[in-house]
Amino acid sequence: MKIGVIGGGQLGRMLALAGTPLGMNFAFLDPAPDACAQALGEHIRADYGDQDHLRQLADEVDLVTFEFESVPAETVAFLSQFVPVYPCAESLRIARDRWFEKSMFKELSIPTPAFADIQSQADLDAAAASIGLPAVLKTRTLGYDGKGQKVLRAASDVVDAFAELGSVPCLLEGFVPFSGEVSLVAVRGRDGETRFYPLVHNTHDSGILSLSVASSDHPLQALAEDYASRVLNKLNYVGVLAFEFFEVDGGLKANEIAPRVHNSGHWTIEGAECSQFENHLRAVAGLPLGSTAKVGESAMLNFIGEVPDVRKVMAIDDCHLHHYGKAFKVGRKVGHATLRCADRATLDAKIAAVQALIAQA
Amino acid sequence: MKIGVIGGGQLGRMLALAGTPLGMNFAFLDPAPDACAQALGEHIRADYGDQDHLRQLADEVDLVTFEFESVPAETVAFLSQFVPVYPCAESLRIARDRWFEKSMFKELSIPTPAFADIQSQADLDAAAASIGLPAVLKTRTLGYDGKGQKVLRAASDVVDAFAELGSVPCLLEGFVPFSGEVSLVAVRGRDGETRFYPLVHNTHDSGILSLSVASSDHPLQALAEDYASRVLNKLNYVGVLAFEFFEVDGGLKANEIAPRVHNSGHWTIEGAECSQFENHLRAVAGLPLGSTAKVGESAMLNFIGEVPDVRKVMAIDDCHLHHYGKAFKVGRKVGHATLRCADRATLDAKIAAVQALIAQA
Repeated sequence: MKIGVIGGGQLGRMLALAGTPLGMNFAFLDPAPDACAQALGEHIRADYGDQDHLRQLADEVDLVTFEFESVPAETVAFLSQFVPVYPCAESLRIARDRWFEKSMFKELSIPTPAFADIQSQADLDAAAASIGLPAVLKTRTLGYDGKGQKVLRAASDVVDAFAELGSVPCLLEGFVPFSGEVSLVAVRGRDGETRFYPLVHNTHDSGILSLSVASSDHPLQALAEDYASRVLNKLNYVGVLAFEFFEVDGGLKANEIAPRVHNSGHWTIEGAECSQFENHLRAVAGLPLGSTAKVGESAMLNFIGEVPDVRKVMAIDDCHLHHYGKAFKVGRKVGHATLRCADRATLDAKIAAVQALIAQA
Repeated sequence: MKIGVIGGGQLGRMLALAGTPLGMNFAFLDPAPDACAQALGEHIRADYGDQDHLRQLADEVDLVTFEFESVPAETVAFLSQFVPVYPCAESLRIARDRWFEKSMFKELSIPTPAFADIQSQADLDAAAASIGLPAVLKTRTLGYDGKGQKVLRAASDVVDAFAELGSVPCLLEGFVPFSGEVSLVAVRGRDGETRFYPLVHNTHDSGILSLSVASSDHPLQALAEDYASRVLNKLNYVGVLAFEFFEVDGGLKANEIAPRVHNSGHWTIEGAECSQFENHLRAVAGLPLGSTAKVGESAMLNFIGEVPDVRKVMAIDDCHLHHYGKAFKVGRKVGHATLRCADRATLDAKIAAVQALIAQA
């Protein structure tokens, strides 16, 4: 079976590493000449709107999936004429726009911070007054890793904020005094079967995920699965979907969903029986889903900007290096390490050891 | 770092799957147009003696390694002029010739079945008389998976046996009434550090490995490690080496070594903290060795000739499919499954489940 992937970055690369042992081949459509997934499959170098090359991809593969959600709707619609596309166009339409996403949460009675659609500075002024400050202004589309957003703490921050984010459609979101951030990586098969990985505690640094720690028997696991199930079934979703939540007063408020394999699920490569990458491929290919059970105690640490001394990373037993083969650049995700340990105390000690290497880099 | 591999079969493929996350790239030199490793790296399609293409490989890569031991000595010598080659030429010279191999065991006081060098039918007649029957006649080089050997049970089997194996240099080996076959996968770094995986119990079917089960606290582990250490240090070996033993009267008799990653080590992909493939690459690249600790209870079942219904294989939780992407052919290794379970009873039940699928295929 040949899988087409829109995007050829590290998520495509890790999909191919998971899918090759299943007997799958891969083609990646990505305009970047140095797309790092190309080591593991065919690289169709073209823009996402290039219909000739999209048609070539569709003709070569059995199905198409995505490694990012900002794929133009026209691209999805075009491909869907020729080849099965998972997740479906509607899933991408919702997930790539914060207004649609938040409105869906509301419709499904999933708690989420107060929010308002912002089409102008006047909208923002009115929403800031009704929602109150602090609040976060985010572009409706194309935001990631803390980009395309601004925290509004005082009235002076509100002035001109709409223009500062480019005068594009935005969402204003009430600030939530959360005690933690957790994510749930879920997978739904073509037949509607769902499976869920253990909740993950996430820590961010300058808006970019730095550390994910898989939980054991998290008290909010069942609640998170309930919320995620509503979304998965509403969208008739197929594949892996990541759901980010704020922990607030012992409950959860939905932050956002990502209709794809997700950075907070990278620990599953070694830390779960079947990884998020393999499970995404199993789902889109109509194969039985794999076990989401945890194997030991596991965490993931991102390498941002550069990979620390690989010799030192590899010298830590239980530490698994994932080098994306990308050029190093400030703020860029260039690799990660997964830890898998027998107990939590060992895990915590090894997290500290990897963090020390990151600090030295 | 770019790694050159002589041979582009499933072992090369699994090396690349392990090395890509370490930031390595791969080039495979293999004459087969359908060499299955080519999905994961550059394929230099050439004969193993083709010096122009060997030179091309040497110029492109940082070091060269092998996925099979029958590489011509001239190939190793030629490559070694231009690029580091691991394991070294002497390791390959010994390992690919049963006479050199057995003689080394004897020199290192490692017990091994009685053996004799056979250059003619007259040699065979004499050796059969002194060693006694039953015995096994094996070609000194190029034998694998039960090929290139003949069991001699009666005097009538001895007549013409040398001609039957092609009148090439052979080894006669006394038959050993063994209670089991075990293998030890060992790795030695450039700095001389050694690590060992747990002993594996192997079951063969028509001379081809069918099942490997990793042991826990095997009483012969220390002895096997002692024997393997003698060989590794004698050869100043770098990389993974597999050592096959017969279990005889509560001790071990050396059968053979393989100077490469080995089929009986495939379970380590999921069943050990760091796989044999990653550890081989770490060793040849001069990086720190990874942990050989077992993760759960693990076994490997070979798919010979064809891969069973992948849907059914994948429906078994804890079962990991490894499809080599090769055309199906009687007697050919085309894939394997790894099982990783919490306890031995579960493992045994799942081994039976996979065996049932193999029987149906």
